[in-house]
This record gives sequence, C-alpha cells and structure tokens, in this order.
Amino acid sequence: MASPPLKNELDIVIPTIRNLDFLEMWRPFFEPYHLIIVQDGDPSKTIKVPPGFDYELYNRNDINKLLGPRASCISFKDSACRCFGYMVSKKKYIFTIDDDCFVANDPTGAKINALEQHIKNLLCPSTPLFFNTLYDPFREGADFVRGYPFSLREGVPTAISHGLWLNIPDYDAPTQLVKPLERNTRYVDTVLTIPKGTLFPMCGMNLAFDRDLIGPAMYFGLMGDGQPIGRYDDMWAGWCCKVICDHLGLGIKTGLPYIYHSKASNPFVNLRKEYKGIFWQEDIIPFFQNMVLPKECTTVQKCYIEMSKQVKEKLGKIDPYFDKLADAMVTWIEAWDELNPAKASS
Amino acid sequence: MASPPLKNELDIVIPTIRNLDFLEMWRPFFEPYHLIIVQDGDPSKTIKVPPGFDYELYNRNDINKLLGPRASCISFKDSACRCFGYMVSKKKYIFTIDDDCFVANDPTGAKINALEQHIKNLLCPSTPLFFNTLYDPFREGADFVRGYPFSLREGVPTAISHGLWLNIPDYDAPTQLVKPLERNTRYVDTVLTIPKGTLFPMCGMNLAFDRDLIGPAMYFGLMGDGQPIGRYDDMWAGWCCKVICDHLGLGIKTGLPYIYHSKASNPFVNLRKEYKGIFWQEDIIPFFQNMVLPKECTTVQKCYIEMSKQVKEKLGKIDPYFDKLADAMVTWIEAWDELNPAKASS
Repeated sequence: MASPPLKNELDIVIPTIRNLDFLEMWRPFFEPYHLIIVQDGDPSKTIKVPPGFDYELYNRNDINKLLGPRASCISFKDSACRCFGYMVSKKKYIFTIDDDCFVANDPTGAKINALEQHIKNLLCPSTPLFFNTLYDPFREGADFVRGYPFSLREGVPTAISHGLWLNIPDYDAPTQLVKPLERNTRYVDTVLTIPKGTLFPMCGMNLAFDRDLIGPAMYFGLMGDGQPIGRYDDMWAGWCCKVICDHLGLGIKTGLPYIYHSKASNPFVNLRKEYKGIFWQEDIIPFFQNMVLPKECTTVQKCYIEMSKQVKEKLGKIDPYFDKLADAMVTWIEAWDELNPAKASS
Repeated sequence: MASPPLKNELDIVIPTIRNLDFLEMWRPFFEPYHLIIVQDGDPSKTIKVPPGFDYELYNRNDINKLLGPRASCISFKDSACRCFGYMVSKKKYIFTIDDDCFVANDPTGAKINALEQHIKNLLCPSTPLFFNTLYDPFREGADFVRGYPFSLREGVPTAISHGLWLNIPDYDAPTQLVKPLERNTRYVDTVLTIPKGTLFPMCGMNLAFDRDLIGPAMYFGLMGDGQPIGRYDDMWAGWCCKVICDHLGLGIKTGLPYIYHSKASNPFVNLRKEYKGIFWQEDIIPFFQNMVLPKECTTVQKCYIEMSKQVKEKLGKIDPYFDKLADAMVTWIEAWDELNPAKASS
C-alpha cells in the first residue's frame, strides 16, 4: 500500500476533543499521522484518546511549564489555544480541525479525505496576481484560460489551504439567530486562490498550512478567559496571514475539501463573545486593507513584529484590548523563536 | 404562464449565425426576447433566421450607413463586430453568446436556462470589497460568513455577469496545441464576485451586462480584417470594464451559468491571430493593474476617454496599433453617445 502523503511532514492539531466519536470517524484518515491535542479547559480533566493513535497532549499546566511567563500569549478556555500546537510541532505542514467536524460525503456518496485534498492544495502553486475563470489551473482537467498572462503561470508557493463546511455554515451570531435552519448543502467542486489585496474571513475549523512559510503568523490571539471577545481567533490570524502572504508573495487557497460540521454552537453564547468584535471589525478591516509593510520585512517574523507595532499604534485607540494583543503578538514571536531556534527571526 | 424575466428590458446580441441549429436549440429560451444579429463577414450573404424569432439583423453595409465614418471603430470579419449590437440596443440589459455555444445540462441532466441565471446574477449585488468563502452570499442557501464586515453586506450594483463553458474550454492557441483533448467536464455550482483590484480574462462567448451601468466600456476593439491581432476583443473589453467597475464601485460576477461550447476553433489559425497579443499582454496587464483614473471621471464615458489617453501615451510605445486603438476608443464613445443621446457623456 502506498504511504499516506507527507506522513512524516504533517501534524494534525486539534484544540480539544469533547467527543471521542470524532476520532473514531477520522481514524482511517488520521491514524497514519501524528496528532497534537491542545486541551482548552480545566487541566485536571483527562482526554482519553483511544488506542491506535500516535499523539501528544498538552493541557494548561504543560503550556505554562514549557513557555513560562510567555504562556500569557496562549488563550485559556478557548479553542484559540490550538495555536500552541502549531508552535510545538516540528513538522513542515499543519492540519487543524475542530472536534465537531466529521467526515463529509461528496455528491457520489464517497467519504471525503479532507487531509489529502489539503495536501494537494498546499503542494501546488497559487495564482493571486490574476484571476483564472476556470478556478485552480493546476487541478486535473483545468488550465489557464485564454488571456492569462504567460509570465504569471508559474504561480507562487501556497502557504494556506482553507477548507469549507457542509451542513452547519460558519455564520456569526446575528445570522445564526436570523436563519436558525439554514444548512449548507451545496457542494461547490472547486479550489481557488484568494487574489492579492483581498481579505477573507479565515475559519479555523478545517484549515491547513505550511509552517515553514507562514507558521509564525498563525497566531490565534487572545480569546476566552479574561478577554473581552471570542470567535475572532481564526479571523485575526487570517487577516494577519493574508497581508503577510500578499507582502511576501505567497498564496492562500479556499474551497475544497469539505468537512461535515455537525452542530451549531449556541447563538446566544456566540453573540456575547462576538458583539464587541462586530463593532471592532469595522475598523480592523480597513486597518488591514490599508496596511503597508516596509520592504525590510523579509521574513514572517519581521512582518509580524511590524504588524504588532501598527496594531498598537492604530487599533490601540479603539480599546486597550489591542494594546494587550499587540504585546501578545510580540510574546508569541519570542516564544515561537525560542521553540524553533533554527528558523528564528534574526 | 409567468412572463420571462426582463422580457422587455433585455436584448440578445449574436455576432453571426453560421449554424441554424444554434437558434433551434435555444428557441424555448430565446423566443420571448428580441435578438440583434451582427453579421461579421460578406454583407451579400444572407442569414436565414427561422420563423418565430423577433430579430433585427445588421451587416457591414448597415453599420457603414448608420455610423458613417465612425464605422471605422467596428471590426470587420471578426466577431468583435458584435459590440455594434450593444450600441444600437435600446434595452437596459444585454446577453451575448456565440453561435457554437449550445444549451448545457446541469449534473441532474436538466437543460440550463443560461439567460435566467445571468439575470439572477445581474439583479443581485456584488461583493468586490471582501471575499465571502461561501461564494455569492445572495444565492439561496448561502449568506455572509462569520467575520464578514456588516457595513459591506449591502454590496454594490452588478454590472457584468460572466458565464462559463462546459466541453471545450476557452484556451489560447498554445494551450489548445498542447492539450488538444482536454474537455471541461467539471460543473462548479457557484457564482462569485471578482474582487476589486483583480483583473480577469473576460470571455465574450457567454456574457451578460447592464448597458446602463457599463455599456459604453463594452467595446470589443479593433480585430480581424486589417488588424494585427484577433481573439483579444473580449479580453480588451474585460480589462477596461474591470478597471472602470472598480473605479465606479460596480461589481462583476463569474461562474454560473454554463453553456456547452460545441467545437474548438482551429489552434493554428488562432496562433496566427494571437501571437502578437501573447507578447503584448505582458505589458497590457501591468498597464491596467497600475491604472489610476482621476476622481473627476464620474461616468463610464469619462473613464473610457481618460483610458484612451493613457492607452495612447503608454501602450502606443509598444506598437502603432495601440495609437489606432486609442483613437477608435474615442470614436466608439462618440458613436455611442450619438446613438444614445439621453445618456450621452456631457
């Protein structure tokens, strides 16, 4: 039997596992890979991982022990803590998934190997500089169409593969409240590059990335316990990553693979977590849309540190939270570089 | 029976009809609408339109008679002449289609009413300022996802709906030569807005637009008889339209509907028509990517005249053809305004 793709080069990061059916369902796809589980709540509780999985598990005590005072940059009681797993991984690629995301079926009824599709997305180039109307030109049966400049057909390296969700769509609390019964049943058979200069809402439910290319920017911010907002962890990371990818000439793909998102989170709880973010994002989006990174920022770390300065300077006016977040961004990079010395910033 | 959508507000423009099966196949969809046929070759030949269709037909003699010396801006012996039909139409919406494009089937085997989908696309807003990962948020069963700024959810008016092709993909001659057997069999069930600031290769095979919003920019340039290039008519229009839409806050959608593109054009003939364009587009794309229209350009006509000046100034250096094209762009606007006095530029 052929070895699973990137077997020794990819870790699966899971923020917590409240439901062991999740692992059983993914067993045929995940068993060949190494799992990093980052437990988001009470460290005295134990997650019982069934036999057969190769995994390491970190709870809050482990995070505190490993990072010391720098552990302050890792969220507590929030799935944003998953980014600790990105930091401790030693692999080139990460796939991260939520524990309420199950294996989806394609329109023929076949089970979708999400991981395999993410790997395909990451291993072929992106095309952020010009839109291809037949979508990903590197997919089988597709190519660049007439009028696509030949000089742009090599594309750029793909840093992030953003997968989608059947069944429960990733809506904010207001939309959840207004459309409680809406389900995503449309299987859109495509992958495409998000064009340069365009921001998108990156969801952390079903996401893969190249740690070497973009890892240090994949910080999920300060959410959960003691913080004024939640549910903006992946969004924050997505906006930072997109600006840095555009600056460094890297690509982000979205579309396939789908997972089956099994249950909606409580819209009332979500509204409480989100409501400040709903105001703040009206300023955050133009902030990122207009951000210019100086050309001296030649690594992800340098970009990220520069970004933290701009966050402090420009978003700090909105709320003191952004001052704290800007400091946490710096702490995150320090911790990243300490744990990943070969690729440290300077 | 319900009246067909926009029955009195839409014209179908067809560059020529070499094959009457084309009309028979589309009869159930086209019969309720008015057709404008623009014959691209020898005016002494007659196209026999079968009974039941409401149409007007223009050949070269008619174009010369109607436009006088300004007829020089309309291409001869090339399907680019179709833009004459956009100019003489009195309707708000145009659908244009090539005569080798047949009715496609969706994955259930049902015949696709391309016109109906184009109308849907044109009548609901576009979202060029931020990418929605579930694609068109205005489609049934979809919405804006978490993290999409609420202030951007009204969207902007849609000016253009760009449809796609099953079977023969719209490839350039080099790709046709390299992949003679490639067929597009992937039905991608989506419509999406091309983000602001991103250019795309607009194909004229299956295209609809709002004449009131973007008509004067839908000029298909100088192609065919006496010109050094061909097959860049729709591309040219697309690049001009995209820059103007971005400037004026209008949207362009691509994706559904599909038509069935029945036969590939001859790649050797295409190579002869295209080869200068293949070089030139390497300069044309950055030219359009970097184009800035001054804020005084508040109408499509003003934008287009400004654009013609920049074409002359910057692309004129590449080849004298662009001087001629820049002049033709001005002539086109003069002719447009003469035939459409109520909406003229000044």
